[in-house]
Amino acid sequence: MPDVVFSVDQTKSMRDQAVPGHNRWHPDIPEAVRVKPGDTFRMECREWTDGQIGNNDSANDVRDVDLSHAHMLSGPVYVEGAEPGDLLIVDILDLGPIPQQDSGPVAGQGWGYTGVFAKENAGGFLTDYYPDAAKAIWDFSGTEVTSRHLPGVRYTGITHPGLFGTAPSERLLARWNAREQALIDTNPTRVPELGLPPLPENTLAGTATGELATRIGAEGARTVPPRENGGNHDIKNFTRGSRVFYPVYVEGAKFSGGDLHFSQGDGEITFCGAIEMGGYIDFHVDLIKGGMETYGVTTNPIYMPGRSEPRYSEFLTFIGISVEDETDTNLYLDATLAYKRACLNAVEYLKKFGYSGELAYLLLGSAPIEGRISGVVDIPNACASLYLPTAIFDFDIRPSSSGPSYADRGSCALSS
Amino acid sequence: MPDVVFSVDQTKSMRDQAVPGHNRWHPDIPEAVRVKPGDTFRMECREWTDGQIGNNDSANDVRDVDLSHAHMLSGPVYVEGAEPGDLLIVDILDLGPIPQQDSGPVAGQGWGYTGVFAKENAGGFLTDYYPDAAKAIWDFSGTEVTSRHLPGVRYTGITHPGLFGTAPSERLLARWNAREQALIDTNPTRVPELGLPPLPENTLAGTATGELATRIGAEGARTVPPRENGGNHDIKNFTRGSRVFYPVYVEGAKFSGGDLHFSQGDGEITFCGAIEMGGYIDFHVDLIKGGMETYGVTTNPIYMPGRSEPRYSEFLTFIGISVEDETDTNLYLDATLAYKRACLNAVEYLKKFGYSGELAYLLLGSAPIEGRISGVVDIPNACASLYLPTAIFDFDIRPSSSGPSYADRGSCALSS
Amino acid sequence: MPDVVFSVDQTKSMRDQAVPGHNRWHPDIPEAVRVKPGDTFRMECREWTDGQIGNNDSANDVRDVDLSHAHMLSGPVYVEGAEPGDLLIVDILDLGPIPQQDSGPVAGQGWGYTGVFAKENAGGFLTDYYPDAAKAIWDFSGTEVTSRHLPGVRYTGITHPGLFGTAPSERLLARWNAREQALIDTNPTRVPELGLPPLPENTLAGTATGELATRIGAEGARTVPPRENGGNHDIKNFTRGSRVFYPVYVEGAKFSGGDLHFSQGDGEITFCGAIEMGGYIDFHVDLIKGGMETYGVTTNPIYMPGRSEPRYSEFLTFIGISVEDETDTNLYLDATLAYKRACLNAVEYLKKFGYSGELAYLLLGSAPIEGRISGVVDIPNACASLYLPTAIFDFDIRPSSSGPSYADRGSCALSS
Amino acid sequence: MPDVVFSVDQTKSMRDQAVPGHNRWHPDIPEAVRVKPGDTFRMECREWTDGQIGNNDSANDVRDVDLSHAHMLSGPVYVEGAEPGDLLIVDILDLGPIPQQDSGPVAGQGWGYTGVFAKENAGGFLTDYYPDAAKAIWDFSGTEVTSRHLPGVRYTGITHPGLFGTAPSERLLARWNAREQALIDTNPTRVPELGLPPLPENTLAGTATGELATRIGAEGARTVPPRENGGNHDIKNFTRGSRVFYPVYVEGAKFSGGDLHFSQGDGEITFCGAIEMGGYIDFHVDLIKGGMETYGVTTNPIYMPGRSEPRYSEFLTFIGISVEDETDTNLYLDATLAYKRACLNAVEYLKKFGYSGELAYLLLGSAPIEGRISGVVDIPNACASLYLPTAIFDFDIRPSSSGPSYADRGSCALSS
Repeated sequence: MPDVVFSVDQTKSMRDQAVPGHNRWHPDIPEAVRVKPGDTFRMECREWTDGQIGNNDSANDVRDVDLSHAHMLSGPVYVEGAEPGDLLIVDILDLGPIPQQDSGPVAGQGWGYTGVFAKENAGGFLTDYYPDAAKAIWDFSGTEVTSRHLPGVRYTGITHPGLFGTAPSERLLARWNAREQALIDTNPTRVPELGLPPLPENTLAGTATGELATRIGAEGARTVPPRENGGNHDIKNFTRGSRVFYPVYVEGAKFSGGDLHFSQGDGEITFCGAIEMGGYIDFHVDLIKGGMETYGVTTNPIYMPGRSEPRYSEFLTFIGISVEDETDTNLYLDATLAYKRACLNAVEYLKKFGYSGELAYLLLGSAPIEGRISGVVDIPNACASLYLPTAIFDFDIRPSSSGPSYADRGSCALSS
Repeated sequence: MPDVVFSVDQTKSMRDQAVPGHNRWHPDIPEAVRVKPGDTFRMECREWTDGQIGNNDSANDVRDVDLSHAHMLSGPVYVEGAEPGDLLIVDILDLGPIPQQDSGPVAGQGWGYTGVFAKENAGGFLTDYYPDAAKAIWDFSGTEVTSRHLPGVRYTGITHPGLFGTAPSERLLARWNAREQALIDTNPTRVPELGLPPLPENTLAGTATGELATRIGAEGARTVPPRENGGNHDIKNFTRGSRVFYPVYVEGAKFSGGDLHFSQGDGEITFCGAIEMGGYIDFHVDLIKGGMETYGVTTNPIYMPGRSEPRYSEFLTFIGISVEDETDTNLYLDATLAYKRACLNAVEYLKKFGYSGELAYLLLGSAPIEGRISGVVDIPNACASLYLPTAIFDFDIRPSSSGPSYADRGSCALSS
Repeated sequence: MPDVVFSVDQTKSMRDQAVPGHNRWHPDIPEAVRVKPGDTFRMECREWTDGQIGNNDSANDVRDVDLSHAHMLSGPVYVEGAEPGDLLIVDILDLGPIPQQDSGPVAGQGWGYTGVFAKENAGGFLTDYYPDAAKAIWDFSGTEVTSRHLPGVRYTGITHPGLFGTAPSERLLARWNAREQALIDTNPTRVPELGLPPLPENTLAGTATGELATRIGAEGARTVPPRENGGNHDIKNFTRGSRVFYPVYVEGAKFSGGDLHFSQGDGEITFCGAIEMGGYIDFHVDLIKGGMETYGVTTNPIYMPGRSEPRYSEFLTFIGISVEDETDTNLYLDATLAYKRACLNAVEYLKKFGYSGELAYLLLGSAPIEGRISGVVDIPNACASLYLPTAIFDFDIRPSSSGPSYADRGSCALSS
Repeated sequence: MPDVVFSVDQTKSMRDQAVPGHNRWHPDIPEAVRVKPGDTFRMECREWTDGQIGNNDSANDVRDVDLSHAHMLSGPVYVEGAEPGDLLIVDILDLGPIPQQDSGPVAGQGWGYTGVFAKENAGGFLTDYYPDAAKAIWDFSGTEVTSRHLPGVRYTGITHPGLFGTAPSERLLARWNAREQALIDTNPTRVPELGLPPLPENTLAGTATGELATRIGAEGARTVPPRENGGNHDIKNFTRGSRVFYPVYVEGAKFSGGDLHFSQGDGEITFCGAIEMGGYIDFHVDLIKGGMETYGVTTNPIYMPGRSEPRYSEFLTFIGISVEDETDTNLYLDATLAYKRACLNAVEYLKKFGYSGELAYLLLGSAPIEGRISGVVDIPNACASLYLPTAIFDFDIRPSSSGPSYADRGSCALSS
């Protein structure tokens, strides 16, 4: 086990750790630890909401979650010698739930959760169809999971971090805040909101205090979206053995992250959608000096997936196109809508086997489904496809002339 | 070899075949052939433009292509016993270029092409960046291709049909025409256009003549987009061994198609983007009576990919988010833009190895790249990822501290 | 389609072709055709017994097969510039059953067969347990097969040639004949025989006549085993996209082969065990001058498998060790016995689902099973493992507390 | 983390643990712990030699290893309700090196080793060619390994236990001892020996003492070979997610094991050949009552590999046949010899890139190579094939006209 350079006591909030992490992006958040290129090290992480969600059968905690605390990140890690313009090579050596703790109140202690946010509190991809909070609890069994809320399903997780990234420069941060505010301003009262502006309330700025902490709260970018620095990519294939090349925007790179997922489907469609957990992650870091220019990597990280992904090879695939079926409205090459329709098609199909819409939605958010952009030029309709591995079910999910095997599949946790 | 139920003489236009095909969707196009559930049969197909594109080093033919002829489809095949509400099971047993013909003037005779449409004539996914027509010619070598226009690249194609589907009912056709016209009406002078309305000019209506042919020309839906009946899915994984379940909307299903591709990348981003060819395709068909209701398959086909896809296991992955970098404009969870940015990031990267932007664009349209919707809930930014198989290059494409291996990689065919 | 450089009229014996092939290895068999490094070409092949086995429900033809005719090979192909010491690069571009012929009396015309040889006529891997001739007929359906003799099973073939190789030098041929005769001499009356010495009877020596043909009959090595020149490898992974590097022992390499298989399990345990067929194979050839010494490839070809192999990812695995269970006899690290026991274990398991021993044997010979050498050092027992893909069955083959789903699975073709 | 039911203090010999394990198979070794069907639990394991091999640059420890101590096993675990005739379902949930210990003197503390045994002390698969002890030390980096002794190589391990099994019945134990003694008696002075008979010296019998311990020493079967109870299978694919079905021969099954491997090639050809380590393994157990008869599983376990195996998809493959090249001696369908020749062919090839024979041998023993039985019926020659993943090398290992990239690749640890 590599040395732990950022440790977390899972009985405490991230705010109360010996060295606290942070929940905003800002260049001036003080470094928490310093490493060298070539170093291998472990970081421990809190579950992204800092422990607001419990292992129970009510979704009230998901309904009422306070998102101003999220994401609780570990770091920043200062990498010696890293300068703006470099590429930071980050190898994900290993990661997993909280080690040596198989039960307890915090996600990552042998269990995790998937949640559908309520429409009035952030919503999710299908929020117009499923506006209420919902939740499923998953039990970890080695590399596999099961859920008391989702009978008939067992799968191997592609465990990965949802969110890691380098600190933005002052200039980059200003661009983020400006462009996101411009978007929000197009419809500032929308529910759910179009974006999240800086919010001093509940800001955690690492070890910063006083005027610096206040400034970070005022300026710091929220951690929800992916951006040029990496951030909340939610790419389900960032698993063991992956190598990521992050742009460096500040001295020392200031690498931070967390939001570990035991598993996730492409899109993370329920929003709080992966199987969320606290845990650990082991990294090896190195630098390509001047790599941003050399390789033309200026707007987003690039990466190479590892070879340890669980293999599924048989799929039932749902297709969606950019037409709102309910209103017969055509949107122009809109891949988001196409994927949404593929998801809804999958939900309708799963209902025929006895799953409620909410259960199907929770399943698609967390299981290792593939979401592909199939066609984006055939005007006016984009086409997306969703690959559901058939082997995750303990019954035959394939269509046949004998019809679907319907059964009572129970219920997820709902809000009261 | 199964019996050929729809044959094509590749020296002639589809219009001049003994039994001509069609290039519009309409319920009243007369059946070309009749089969039974359980039957296995072969269909021969013209290349989708009906032979307008040549094996040469100029993209003028792509620039000037007349799209009113496209897509030239084979069929309709009437399946006995098929009724509205059924699912038509279609197994893709085999497909390939024109058999026994390894050279000649028609795509599919040992070669195929990938084209970038000019912005004023349909455009492509990156048309704002690459507005001019471009073309690459690919030579088939068994299951692999190479191109004199794209040195350093060789890959195994995931051969598939771009377009197959059942005939729409009269009511479904009317919905298509209405909703697409409504979209076009939002910006009727846009270049490229938002959609393509029915067009009597150059309509081919199978064996219909007289008043019926005139009506089909007036009402028939254009074949460019994917719709409820299947249609131009351009899903690169519809390869040998796949089983597709098509909704049936008319008596006999009236199954038609064509637009064979030797290979394609997810998105088919150059528009004329796969490696286009004429050829043959072998099917087995069957029915699930009443399957649309039984399985909740009401808006799009579902399918199960085959197990014969070529395997690539090492990728360099590019990430895009829904921000227009040039203008720092944020779009809300726009997966189309996210994938566009991932494509542009890949193009910039490939330029560092000596490929022109057009060459990189042509490569991404045709090679077996994976395009995934990674995150679609992390407001405001969608995240898409593009997986480029590293083994298709005969040099090392991975980033390292030694920098990219730059070389003169020549040029594609351009327009004059 | 590449030019056919060796053509076969499937209505005639290989002996009666315009340019006949050969059925012995000898350096002096005259070249049938001449190609250059860099050339692409097609060869047509007879089924290996030259058409002795029919599409019927009796195994009498397998029981009585005259093996002195086998294998009927196409070639030799003389590669210009090839000299002893070179490596001949052979790319397998494509291959398949007899094109454009979907029915007829010859294996490869839409069907193939798997046979168990009778113990007194060559036998098979389990001949002590299944001494009588047996046969299953397989119907081709694109890339998949089914058999009227093996209900409940359908699989995608890894189509490949069983046998290709270069001509031996005079010296190498002499070594073969000497060492094999020495082995035969250890037990010359064994049934089945230990090896097959040269046999003038029924020798086909290509276009050779007179004294040369007589000498080839007297000296020519039988084609059954694999040897330094390649030969009857029966490696099921020599499929489309594979690149083989053959040692060159004579001027021009004199490359020959045939024995096409629609599918085969590792070991080809029934002897006549793959799904046998005539058909075509497309090659590209090139040379590495002096490659044998440069790369240390002196005793056997090396190769790189293609990436188009059908993928199976779920297996039920049987294990065998080098103990003869019936007599409790331990053999020392004998991988042959270990694999035999794994095969027998699989047969016993499949019997519980209703297959006869012969049916299970025929299935294991032809389906894409993996046979691995797991441990060969743990004295005194070698360990082998046999991976049976679960997805080839249309019922659940996995063990569970509910027990096996027994059904009457019919019978294979037997001898009278 | 599941409850640890068998714990190991890695600073002490297995003999000195609070509850010691055992190093012989015997029905009367007292149970160490009791679990129920449906239970999940962790076992901790010593490295198989009980710590005789060090992290250094001399192979003297391998040369002088005292094999009478091996294998040091954890257990027996008594499974309530298990009776002779049942199948014990064992799910391998997770396993790995010694947790939370990244350095130290014991294999599994961040490192492991591969050793070639000296010919006079057990030998290895190629002992006639490499008779002297040799060793390579491997450093763990998450799921990957590198070695200071094997530059240019890095790979992802398929981590697995070499040895687990149930206790034999008294009758089965007697059969083992009888048949193995019979083999040994055929050549009792052979070097290396043909087998290992019971040996009271250094026997560890768990918590047994006195007369019972003496009897176990006198009768207990050595743990080296795989047998009907499982045992030292050394199947490299027994990794996370695998489900094994073990025959039960005694009340409670008495399940024991150890010999964890970070990685291994098929065959484990160096004997001490995997990357050996101590560590932990998490199991879930269940029963199929009467399953041995129901499923015909009477002579060996069966298993289903997990889906978490690291994927390699490009290979350079070496072929071997059952001919002893040095003496031109043909053995009859001998798969052991065929695989030996494939190994030797691979070694010769790797020498051309600068590896010594010993280094190549150590590499083939430990890296995830596939060893397949390709043909076992083509008299007189068996054919085996060895698949070496090309991606484990940081240089191009494929043959080409430019020749191998030779470099000084250093040396492994040798004996003095």
